[in-house]
Amino acid sequence: MSETDLPDRAVVDLLGLVALGELLAFERMAVDARLAPDLRRRAALGEMAAAEIGNYRRLADRIAALGVLPDDAMAPYVGPLQAYHDSTEPRDWAEAVTKAYVGDAITDDFLRGVAATLAEPDRQLVLDVLHDSSYADFAVAEIRAAVEADPRVAGRLSMWARRLLGEALSQAGRVAAAEGGAFAALVTRGGRVDVPELFRRLTAAHTTRMTAAGLNN
Amino acid sequence: MSETDLPDRAVVDLLGLVALGELLAFERMAVDARLAPDLRRRAALGEMAAAEIGNYRRLADRIAALGVLPDDAMAPYVGPLQAYHDSTEPRDWAEAVTKAYVGDAITDDFLRGVAATLAEPDRQLVLDVLHDSSYADFAVAEIRAAVEADPRVAGRLSMWARRLLGEALSQAGRVAAAEGGAFAALVTRGGRVDVPELFRRLTAAHTTRMTAAGLNN
Repeated sequence: MSETDLPDRAVVDLLGLVALGELLAFERMAVDARLAPDLRRRAALGEMAAAEIGNYRRLADRIAALGVLPDDAMAPYVGPLQAYHDSTEPRDWAEAVTKAYVGDAITDDFLRGVAATLAEPDRQLVLDVLHDSSYADFAVAEIRAAVEADPRVAGRLSMWARRLLGEALSQAGRVAAAEGGAFAALVTRGGRVDVPELFRRLTAAHTTRMTAAGLNN
Repeated sequence: MSETDLPDRAVVDLLGLVALGELLAFERMAVDARLAPDLRRRAALGEMAAAEIGNYRRLADRIAALGVLPDDAMAPYVGPLQAYHDSTEPRDWAEAVTKAYVGDAITDDFLRGVAATLAEPDRQLVLDVLHDSSYADFAVAEIRAAVEADPRVAGRLSMWARRLLGEALSQAGRVAAAEGGAFAALVTRGGRVDVPELFRRLTAAHTTRMTAAGLNN
C-alpha cells in the first residue's frame, strides 16, 4: 500500500486516539493548574490546557467529516488513556509541570511518527496539533526553578519523569492492542509504524529532554 | 467625573476582578466536564472553559499594560470568588451545566453593567469577553433534556439555580467590600453603579433565564 491509501477506518481510529489524548490532557492540565503557587502560573498551565481543547475540536470535526461519531472513534482508547492519567496524578506543582512537559513531548514524538503514515489533509492536521514550543519552554523554566530552590527536587522529578515515560509506554501497548481498533492492525501488522523502533526513539528523545530540563534521565 | 476619567486604579481593580472570574470559571468548568455522560458533552463543557481562559489572557495583558501585575490586581478577589465555587460544587452533569449557564449569565449581566462606567479601550474589552450565546444554547438544551428524562429534576435544578444566584450575590457583597479595592469605592460610593438596582436587575434577568431553560425561578 502506498502512504495515501491507508484504510479510512484506521485513519479515523488514529484521529480518535489523538483527539481523546487532547481532551484528557486538557482536563488533567486544567485540574493540575490548581497546584500552581500563584495565579500567573495557574493561568499559564490553564492556557496550555486550552490549546489542547482547540486541537480536540479540529480532530473531532475531521472525524465527523469522515462519517464517524467522534465518541465512537475515541471509545476504544478511553481505558488506557484514563489509566495513564489516573496512575500519574501529580502531587505538587513541579510534578504537574514535569508531567505536562513529558506528556506533551511524548505525544509530539508519537504524532510525528504517525503523521508520516497519513495522506493529506490528515497528515497536516496531525502536524498542526503538535505543541507550541513556548509551553515546553515554560515547563523547563519551572522545573529548573524548582531544582534551583531545592536541589534535592532533581532526583525526585527525574524519578517521576521516568515513571511518566514508563506508564505512557505501558499504556501505549494497551492502545496498540485496543479491541476493535483498526489502528491496532496499522501499528502492529501494517508495518507502517515500527513500534519497537518508535519506543526506542521515544525513550532516547526523553533522555535528551530530561537533560534539557536539568534532570537525570 | 465623566465616564472617561475613572481613576486608573479602579479600572485595574475591575479588570482584575473580571480576569480572576474568567480564570476560576475556566478551572471549575474544566473540572466539572468530568461529570459529563459522554465524551461529546465532556468536550463541549471543556470548550466553554477554554473560551474563559482566552478572555483571561486578554484581561491580564491589559492589566499589565496599565502597569500592574495581574496577580496583584486579582488578589483582593480570590477569597470571595473561590468561596463561590467551593460552596457550589455540582454533584452531577445537570447541576454542572446549570451552574455554567447561571454563572455565565450573571457574569454577563454584571459586565454589561460595569462596561458603561469604563472608557475605551477597556469598555470594549469588557464587552468582548461577554459569553458567546452558543454556550447558553448548549446549556439550555442539556437542562431541558435532563428535565425531559426525569421531570422531577426540574424542582431540584430550580432550587440549585436559586442557590447559585444567592451565593453569587452574597459573594458579590464581599467583592464590593474587598479590602484595598478602589473598585469598592467605585461601586459603593462613586454612584457609577447602582448596586441595589444592579442586584434587582440580576435577579429579574435570572428569573427570565430560568423560564427559558424550563425551570421555575
